[in-house]
Amino acid sequence: MRSGTAEFVESAEKVVGPNHVLTATEQTEPYAVDWTRRWEGHTPAVVRPGDVAEVAELVRLARRHQVALVPQGGKTGLVGGSVPLAGEVVLSLTRLTGIEPVDRLAGQVTVGAGVTLGALQAAAAEAGWAFGVDLAARDSATVGGMIATNAGGLHVVRHGAMRAQVVGVEAVLGTGAVVRRLRGLVKDNTGYDLAQLLCGSEGTLGIVTRARLRLVAPPGPLVVALLGLPSMTAAVAFAATLRTTLPGVRALEAMTGDSMRRTAAHLGVALPTTPTASAYLLVEADPASDDPTLTVADSLTRAAGEGALGDAVENAAVATAAGERAKLWRFREAQPEAAAALGVVHKMDVTLPTSELAGFCDDVAVAIADRWPEAATFLYGHVGDGNVHVNVVGGPEGEDVDDLVLEQVVDRGGSISAEHGIGTAKKRWLPRDRSPAEIESMRAVKQALDPDGILNPNVLFPPFCL
Amino acid sequence: MRSGTAEFVESAEKVVGPNHVLTATEQTEPYAVDWTRRWEGHTPAVVRPGDVAEVAELVRLARRHQVALVPQGGKTGLVGGSVPLAGEVVLSLTRLTGIEPVDRLAGQVTVGAGVTLGALQAAAAEAGWAFGVDLAARDSATVGGMIATNAGGLHVVRHGAMRAQVVGVEAVLGTGAVVRRLRGLVKDNTGYDLAQLLCGSEGTLGIVTRARLRLVAPPGPLVVALLGLPSMTAAVAFAATLRTTLPGVRALEAMTGDSMRRTAAHLGVALPTTPTASAYLLVEADPASDDPTLTVADSLTRAAGEGALGDAVENAAVATAAGERAKLWRFREAQPEAAAALGVVHKMDVTLPTSELAGFCDDVAVAIADRWPEAATFLYGHVGDGNVHVNVVGGPEGEDVDDLVLEQVVDRGGSISAEHGIGTAKKRWLPRDRSPAEIESMRAVKQALDPDGILNPNVLFPPFCL
Repeated sequence: MRSGTAEFVESAEKVVGPNHVLTATEQTEPYAVDWTRRWEGHTPAVVRPGDVAEVAELVRLARRHQVALVPQGGKTGLVGGSVPLAGEVVLSLTRLTGIEPVDRLAGQVTVGAGVTLGALQAAAAEAGWAFGVDLAARDSATVGGMIATNAGGLHVVRHGAMRAQVVGVEAVLGTGAVVRRLRGLVKDNTGYDLAQLLCGSEGTLGIVTRARLRLVAPPGPLVVALLGLPSMTAAVAFAATLRTTLPGVRALEAMTGDSMRRTAAHLGVALPTTPTASAYLLVEADPASDDPTLTVADSLTRAAGEGALGDAVENAAVATAAGERAKLWRFREAQPEAAAALGVVHKMDVTLPTSELAGFCDDVAVAIADRWPEAATFLYGHVGDGNVHVNVVGGPEGEDVDDLVLEQVVDRGGSISAEHGIGTAKKRWLPRDRSPAEIESMRAVKQALDPDGILNPNVLFPPFCL
Repeated sequence: MRSGTAEFVESAEKVVGPNHVLTATEQTEPYAVDWTRRWEGHTPAVVRPGDVAEVAELVRLARRHQVALVPQGGKTGLVGGSVPLAGEVVLSLTRLTGIEPVDRLAGQVTVGAGVTLGALQAAAAEAGWAFGVDLAARDSATVGGMIATNAGGLHVVRHGAMRAQVVGVEAVLGTGAVVRRLRGLVKDNTGYDLAQLLCGSEGTLGIVTRARLRLVAPPGPLVVALLGLPSMTAAVAFAATLRTTLPGVRALEAMTGDSMRRTAAHLGVALPTTPTASAYLLVEADPASDDPTLTVADSLTRAAGEGALGDAVENAAVATAAGERAKLWRFREAQPEAAAALGVVHKMDVTLPTSELAGFCDDVAVAIADRWPEAATFLYGHVGDGNVHVNVVGGPEGEDVDDLVLEQVVDRGGSISAEHGIGTAKKRWLPRDRSPAEIESMRAVKQALDPDGILNPNVLFPPFCL
């Protein structure tokens, strides 16, 4: 342990109490690895503050002793952004689990950074409201981490990403300054929105300790439809049409035909619609009508008039009962586990301009198959947001496949990170995605709010820019 | 003209052409005053660039010659944020009027900073989409100014403020760096979101030249209801209930009884519902049903079960035909003109925590009447967002009434600026609204992106902080 680190740890124990500073390897190990076990680091200490004052004191100590901190939530990221890969001290926010009473008048709630998405959803539901973001890792992912990575998920097409839910935050910046805006003011134009700046900053500017979040109306009776389409191009076009014609559309998920058939095989069930389609589209809507099936069917039929959809609408599987809806959703949600069942998965999470989405899906699958004929490629994602998850398994080792995929993304004007951020995994790619002027501007902001570079210093910025 | 300014103007003429640099007083005067004529300044020159390259060159020249610039759009602000009150050079963005073809697949459009909201709405509608923000100044307000002030308007409760519509921007920062993110990537977590940082920054960090904006589904058949309620407390509570129970609610506007009766008198028409109510609530919804009236009436009745609403629901005026809806909307939209008809208006635009909204409306009206018995106070606004417009006319001169109102806002944990920003008008109030740590952090960001302090240097920050 470096002497600065030893002094920091000694002082930190006085701040949070010795029980909340872990230094024994068997205790720190779980905090040094992410859930995929792809990213494994080491740390001299894990510090677990219990409130914002403790966090502020720890940041001041870290500045004084020049100790790097990695803020950590539920560790459900995929890019190595919250594990101490360079031996940083881990600042775990999981003790900040307070949930204040839901403000029913405002439709808002204030929660601690360590609250899981699942706990937040439950609190909202109990008060007759809902939370606008949902994702598969709901029982582990924490609000702080979701803000730091601007998490997206299934309903961005309806409610926006995490950024759109954040009304305000309490946070400790890298300077040690505590900023706090928790009064729930939806319209509040009094200078720079520091909460929005922290959204997606991956713990490099400040540490969120609490957040004031907007809630949304709970959905009415839901309808889910699964359609098999003649091409990904048709799926993208149909999704666009549904966004303007289907009342209450709240999820638009697309999958390639290969991904779908592999997933059905993994689940051991037959596809409930056209089994040989080139692409599949899963639609969830809250049509707010007495006869939701009819409304959705009408909308599908009306929307279908504008595209070359084959028999997709006639053969669509439509479900309204909860159990039946869940069965259709399984074909989408089981895609990652179907991939994982085949071996170690390369996971990439990218966004394409909508006009490039179908071409990307078509070409990248062919390019991977050409180079690694034994590989299985899964392509699925949130077509309403242009977001594709690329999972490749059983073929390539090393990072060649990541390079192949990200190269195509950049060439088509896409984003190399849709939902998980840059972290460690993608930082060498950042200069391909963002211009020198943008990276320089980001570095100036980093320098302004974290002048000593103590907050997650090894993520986001490429090494040759440091 | 200072020598640095003279050199800047000479160089600027080479950049934009002599026709686009105005220096004669009769030419510059219209650019030195806002539409309310409350804010009137003077300027040695108005420069009108035609594209981003020219803007970048002008920023570089301004840095070299240490000339302060005031970026200017449609001048529809209310806080003196876009007029050269200290003799700054005006940078008018009104030539940037390009509207690219609507991207129908993505539901997005790229437009120049000088495009008016009205032109944007028309382009969206022609492509089968709509724009999520609407406000009364739609024919003058420009996209650049709306981003710089994070404009809100009538449908924030449904679609969010301007910030929520911005997918990306092209902008020139105070360093001269050009940042550009116009590919329409809804999910794009590749470092700090500089576009979001520019939203609401009032031209102090960068100059937006183009924006990529998300569009929304056009509304279906609309229903408008006007209800008279026994108290503002009941109006606030009923609005909260409607947000979770009324499908497709898209506007929730409240007015005090006094404001409403004065406005009806100004219009010379009778109130279409309970004429003696203490508060009024205007509801607009897009219920997406075959019989919209029935659905809204059902929702109102169901929601009414939870509150002490008197005969508000039974006597509600409900309209579905466009002309009838417009008649109900007039009672809300004519509030400012009813105030202006009585004399020079003090206009304040504030947000309260929802739980404080009714108490604020009640108390502030009494406090103003106590001190200025001859004054007429109008209180109306977007109750779904906690946003109240306070208009006071016929009584106070000077800024005493502003002080009285803002004092009450701050005491109740509200925001001194909901929609228009701080500008010049409210900067001495900023330290009451935001903490020293927040103002220091904002100043650090300003220093990072505008190191020479050339962009709108006389707004936002209070003088004693400079």
